[in-house]
Amino acid sequence: MKNETKKHDSNCLVAYGIDTFGDRWSFLVLRDMMLYGKCRYGEFLCCEEQIATNVLAQRLKHLEREGIISKARDPENRRSYIYSLTDKGLDLAPVLLEIIRWSSRHLEMNARRRRLLKRIETDRDGILADIRDGRAILTAP
Amino acid sequence: MKNETKKHDSNCLVAYGIDTFGDRWSFLVLRDMMLYGKCRYGEFLCCEEQIATNVLAQRLKHLEREGIISKARDPENRRSYIYSLTDKGLDLAPVLLEIIRWSSRHLEMNARRRRLLKRIETDRDGILADIRDGRAILTAP
Repeated sequence: MKNETKKHDSNCLVAYGIDTFGDRWSFLVLRDMMLYGKCRYGEFLCCEEQIATNVLAQRLKHLEREGIISKARDPENRRSYIYSLTDKGLDLAPVLLEIIRWSSRHLEMNARRRRLLKRIETDRDGILADIRDGRAILTAP
Repeated sequence: MKNETKKHDSNCLVAYGIDTFGDRWSFLVLRDMMLYGKCRYGEFLCCEEQIATNVLAQRLKHLEREGIISKARDPENRRSYIYSLTDKGLDLAPVLLEIIRWSSRHLEMNARRRRLLKRIETDRDGILADIRDGRAILTAP
């Protein structure tokens, strides 16, 4: 994967972050886990941006290799997996919240977005706890 | 540019952010402006990650079109330009700082990185003011 070969070109904390989680599709998968509580392959595939199945598989592997997510057999269906955020992945929640705050300032707002922003501004600890416990912050659009 | 056609696929605040500033090279240009106070084409070209000149030109155009940076003729050399962050671009500083904090927790630290992290933790307002005023936070590596 392009990102992986490039990562070691740089000594920089910013470049390390970008190359580890900052690829568009990787970050959208992390968004789906943090905001919507998604944890299954089929759920990630249903994202609004229509991720391709080969891209999704590659990004999940990449995130797992980077120690940002982990997977375990689904106890309800031994043929499938449950993905969850590791501590390293959960540590990305503040980055996600800052991106949402930024976009909120520069994109037209609707009621749903306003509610999310208000919660980020007034109940940041509650949101971080929900993410940590795998509770959805939003219902999927 | 791939990012631009994709942006309108999604209604999501996270996807909007990623597609507006989150491309690897775009974000590294923003890093160079915020951390190193770079403002000239030739300075961006000298980044540690060795950005190609056509990629740099494209990303500068993209960031300008998105209203994140602006350019003006260099008063010292009328044939070249000075790039600066707009308010929309300056608003990205908290995202940059959160990425640095995350990477600091998951990458080996050296004295330089420790100093930067310490300043983020203890003098966040000072760093944000330096970025706003175009003062370098770090000397280029």
